[in-house]
Amino acid sequence: MGTVTTPWKQLLLNSLNSNSHLRHSTYFQLATISPSGMPANRTVVFRGFQETTNKILINTDCRSHKIEDLNHWPFAEICWYFTDTWEQFRINGNVDVIDGSNADPVKLQQREKAWFASSPKSRLQYLGPNPGLPSLLDQPTQDSSSLDPSAGPVAAFCLLVLDPNQVDYLNLKSNERITFSRKIANEEISWNSEKVNP
Amino acid sequence: MGTVTTPWKQLLLNSLNSNSHLRHSTYFQLATISPSGMPANRTVVFRGFQETTNKILINTDCRSHKIEDLNHWPFAEICWYFTDTWEQFRINGNVDVIDGSNADPVKLQQREKAWFASSPKSRLQYLGPNPGLPSLLDQPTQDSSSLDPSAGPVAAFCLLVLDPNQVDYLNLKSNERITFSRKIANEEISWNSEKVNP
Repeated sequence: MGTVTTPWKQLLLNSLNSNSHLRHSTYFQLATISPSGMPANRTVVFRGFQETTNKILINTDCRSHKIEDLNHWPFAEICWYFTDTWEQFRINGNVDVIDGSNADPVKLQQREKAWFASSPKSRLQYLGPNPGLPSLLDQPTQDSSSLDPSAGPVAAFCLLVLDPNQVDYLNLKSNERITFSRKIANEEISWNSEKVNP
Repeated sequence: MGTVTTPWKQLLLNSLNSNSHLRHSTYFQLATISPSGMPANRTVVFRGFQETTNKILINTDCRSHKIEDLNHWPFAEICWYFTDTWEQFRINGNVDVIDGSNADPVKLQQREKAWFASSPKSRLQYLGPNPGLPSLLDQPTQDSSSLDPSAGPVAAFCLLVLDPNQVDYLNLKSNERITFSRKIANEEISWNSEKVNP
């Protein structure tokens, strides 16, 4: 039996392909809720899907506020706008936070895989000072020589895995909008899609 | 006494200017929280500042979910990424929702001003069917002839006014990050700024 790609995932792969000449096509905005109940929103980088699933991978720093947010309330909504094709994907779901203290060896392996899949330059930022804290004038800057390329993930490295629950697709060129909702029946996941007004 | 522009506002005006050749430079992502406590995130269009203030204007449809969200919990965070200059502004604050039933005549005037400042084409979308509801096949499409250009705002037209409370500026080219926080002392508003680690 062949694998059928979920309709929204196919649309998203098409958009990634059509916008791949733009560096920022893999950037999207991730909204979370802070422990004090305030909305938070920041740009993050799409690191691909987890193997053949619909789950979206994001690398982040354990010391960033979003980790606090997600440990407190593990739900997020992605807003991903493709500037060349005028398409928007809003993807909400729950997020699994995988840091080095995770008890599941399979998840630790996924984190390690994500670490080695990222460039030496992006690995380097996890060795830098605590993000968001006051910047000290005489902070030593890290250079790539301080990082052994074969060394595994550093403590600050965290993998986020967003498992989509609903996807809202909007095409501003054709003025079409489709809502995709996950349905679970008899332990089988399927997706309903519905054309809605833009 | 001359008016001094708030430092973060000047940075934002500079970014808007440097990225003005890109249609999407006035688009940003607005995160809110739904009445059921879930994060929501969507792209909206920057409609300028309210007169000489720091308040950010957004036009929207009264029938969209964000109105429900904001009526329930009037806080939002903007994430605005400028794709050419690699700058990000995260702007949080509380949001005033101004629809046609507002009791304040000054606010109604602001709503009217926003209506007439928007193009006939964008006014037309407020005459369309309820956004997000199932799309009917034989829906009549609105054409510009159905709208009198001198007529005031239709019922579905809503003005959002976001009053910034904190601004986080990140420059990915220079790797600099600055946090701006509003301070109120003796009924005077001032802004603190601090360099923080990216």
